[in-house]
Amino acid sequence: MTNKQLVLQTDFGLGDGAVSAMYGVAKAVATDLFIADLTHEISPYNIWEGSYRLYQTLNYWPKGTVFVSVVDPGVGSERKSVCALTKSGHYILTPDNGTLTHVAHYFGLVKVYRIDENTRRLPDSAESHTFHGRDVYAYNGAKLASGQLTLAELGQEISRSELTTLPLLEPTLKNEQISGMVDILDVRFGSLWTNISLQLLKELKIKRGDLILVTISFKEKEVYRAKLPFVRSFAEVSVNAPLLYINSLLNVGIALNQASFSAAYHIETGSDWTVTLQKVE
Amino acid sequence: MTNKQLVLQTDFGLGDGAVSAMYGVAKAVATDLFIADLTHEISPYNIWEGSYRLYQTLNYWPKGTVFVSVVDPGVGSERKSVCALTKSGHYILTPDNGTLTHVAHYFGLVKVYRIDENTRRLPDSAESHTFHGRDVYAYNGAKLASGQLTLAELGQEISRSELTTLPLLEPTLKNEQISGMVDILDVRFGSLWTNISLQLLKELKIKRGDLILVTISFKEKEVYRAKLPFVRSFAEVSVNAPLLYINSLLNVGIALNQASFSAAYHIETGSDWTVTLQKVE
Amino acid sequence: MTNKQLVLQTDFGLGDGAVSAMYGVAKAVATDLFIADLTHEISPYNIWEGSYRLYQTLNYWPKGTVFVSVVDPGVGSERKSVCALTKSGHYILTPDNGTLTHVAHYFGLVKVYRIDENTRRLPDSAESHTFHGRDVYAYNGAKLASGQLTLAELGQEISRSELTTLPLLEPTLKNEQISGMVDILDVRFGSLWTNISLQLLKELKIKRGDLILVTISFKEKEVYRAKLPFVRSFAEVSVNAPLLYINSLLNVGIALNQASFSAAYHIETGSDWTVTLQKVE
Repeated sequence: MTNKQLVLQTDFGLGDGAVSAMYGVAKAVATDLFIADLTHEISPYNIWEGSYRLYQTLNYWPKGTVFVSVVDPGVGSERKSVCALTKSGHYILTPDNGTLTHVAHYFGLVKVYRIDENTRRLPDSAESHTFHGRDVYAYNGAKLASGQLTLAELGQEISRSELTTLPLLEPTLKNEQISGMVDILDVRFGSLWTNISLQLLKELKIKRGDLILVTISFKEKEVYRAKLPFVRSFAEVSVNAPLLYINSLLNVGIALNQASFSAAYHIETGSDWTVTLQKVE
Repeated sequence: MTNKQLVLQTDFGLGDGAVSAMYGVAKAVATDLFIADLTHEISPYNIWEGSYRLYQTLNYWPKGTVFVSVVDPGVGSERKSVCALTKSGHYILTPDNGTLTHVAHYFGLVKVYRIDENTRRLPDSAESHTFHGRDVYAYNGAKLASGQLTLAELGQEISRSELTTLPLLEPTLKNEQISGMVDILDVRFGSLWTNISLQLLKELKIKRGDLILVTISFKEKEVYRAKLPFVRSFAEVSVNAPLLYINSLLNVGIALNQASFSAAYHIETGSDWTVTLQKVE
Repeated sequence: MTNKQLVLQTDFGLGDGAVSAMYGVAKAVATDLFIADLTHEISPYNIWEGSYRLYQTLNYWPKGTVFVSVVDPGVGSERKSVCALTKSGHYILTPDNGTLTHVAHYFGLVKVYRIDENTRRLPDSAESHTFHGRDVYAYNGAKLASGQLTLAELGQEISRSELTTLPLLEPTLKNEQISGMVDILDVRFGSLWTNISLQLLKELKIKRGDLILVTISFKEKEVYRAKLPFVRSFAEVSVNAPLLYINSLLNVGIALNQASFSAAYHIETGSDWTVTLQKVE
């Protein structure tokens, strides 16, 4: 059951009228919708980032919330438009281009429907092929969120295995060493967010106060190596000092207190950027 | 009839408390308003851009929505404050400085009233002369949107011909060649949005798949000349390749797939930047 | 009495999912909340700026509005979490790190409670120590705004004098000269906002049309000195010309018409940046 809450994510930025047009279309469908943003500053065409931000945020919204996520370099092509119901009870409308990767993997999907872009779209929008965010996703998202359409009425059910997914590395624990990758940045502050979970640290019996040898490599070439304290909060080390912490998704973060780790060491994100952790005895 | 929906546009940015103060003033007028943003990132003092963004967005909002648009280099001077009712059934409160140019031209205005800035303003705000966005426009926009004031109660009706307007070029079709201008950028992605309509392409019997000779000039000096495919969607050409397409307002756009045309060729906007299109036989 | 309106301020930016997670948590607490932003672009860790933006905005929101302000370099440390009720009838939840400085000084506080971070937090968030904006402030702000908790139920009352405050300079009037400081910038436009009130100008019998000798110094070294007209609005001087005006908080501003004073003369903010005003006879 949807709950009249609609959350929008795009790579459009807020600098022109695109997001506002999506709001307007949704309000025209149903006056009583609550509409909010996830973010509109996904880096242009960066599907991975869109996928991650859904994973980061989804579970903090009430069950029944409908998400629209539009990072859509293939707009107007043959790529499918889909709507997924997650095991957590949320709905996501998005181009089928990998945007569901993290949510499918970490939370699971119950059902996926292909949205029929010809019959399920903003009336009189058929000549426009470059703004499905407005004409397809916001429109149908609002129909679904308001209860005017059910999931099954959006189109044909498809198999979850038909969905496009991006490659997702699993962290590993071997020979007392954990290996993972830099998933994403805490963009504003420049901290690294890895895919290594608190759970995995616990398996290695790492606990607050321990010193951890952190190695960061780009394409297997070492870029950073140092012993970092595993702390509860940034304020436990002095300003500009490095630290290892558990971020708000309960994964390992690597940071400088009140400075940008990413900028200081020119570290970026993706599966080429690997991280290994070892407890210093 | 207004519908309790208020949409705000400014050149204030979101970096300080200005927009929030406008929201607060509106909520203090009427608790049950729905308030949303068009954009607050209009380039400072750029009235043309503010005018264009209203044109881009207005029709996607339900009839009865009240827009407040504040790009106001003349705040506190003798320039008028006005409220217009459009033929599309929307209301716009704005300084009379050209902000209504596109909407008046493309959609038409039914009536215009001058807002009496002395009697119709936030109580106790008379000492402040630099923030009419808060003291005059958000305040009266909320009064109007909530039904506490009618359009006629805002002030004196004035003639539409009294309004300040910016010069607006019409595209022309002559000798099998269409000429127009670069109206604005799709800022985030760097595509050029021209004032040449799909309709005009059809008059020249241009259809998807055709090759179009595109010439872009600055003050009549040629800056770019190439044959571009007229496609339905960006994904029909390879990444970084140029294309001609129909944008979400059903006008001609010129772009690079997943790159910025504007940045690549240093092309900006305004009537000095002309575009001609010719079908390649 | 709270009024179901919740206003959020952070230094998180809008580039990732952090603010959206705060919205989601609040909506999960109470579906009927109205949620809006003050700003999320406070410079990272800049408590002064956060304090100023609350002062700038608070009074334009209806009494009973609940503010959450999270500029929190000490998150997870021993710094307190507090909720204050202001004399103006607003509530502010924030880390106790100086964020309440301006509001306490200019508007006054009625009561302050320490929020018990152990018992009053998002369920199942105890492993997370770096995102109190979500786990403590948005959660309790929503509880308070919706009436599910009273102020006294958040924790223990503490004395106002226990609060951390930042040093705040008072402007002075001596020998026909007013001295103050550059409090903050009107960031988008680059105007200087001083802590010198319109009231103080009046005591010196300065009135619109007068010429004012303005001196700006950094650590007592003179950086700028010129005679500026005291005008009602920017438009009274030509484009790029300097002016002295009364800003929207009824304090003295110093600006260039349609240009950035701050950028032109490399002037920044804080108590090292002093301003003196003298009437030119």
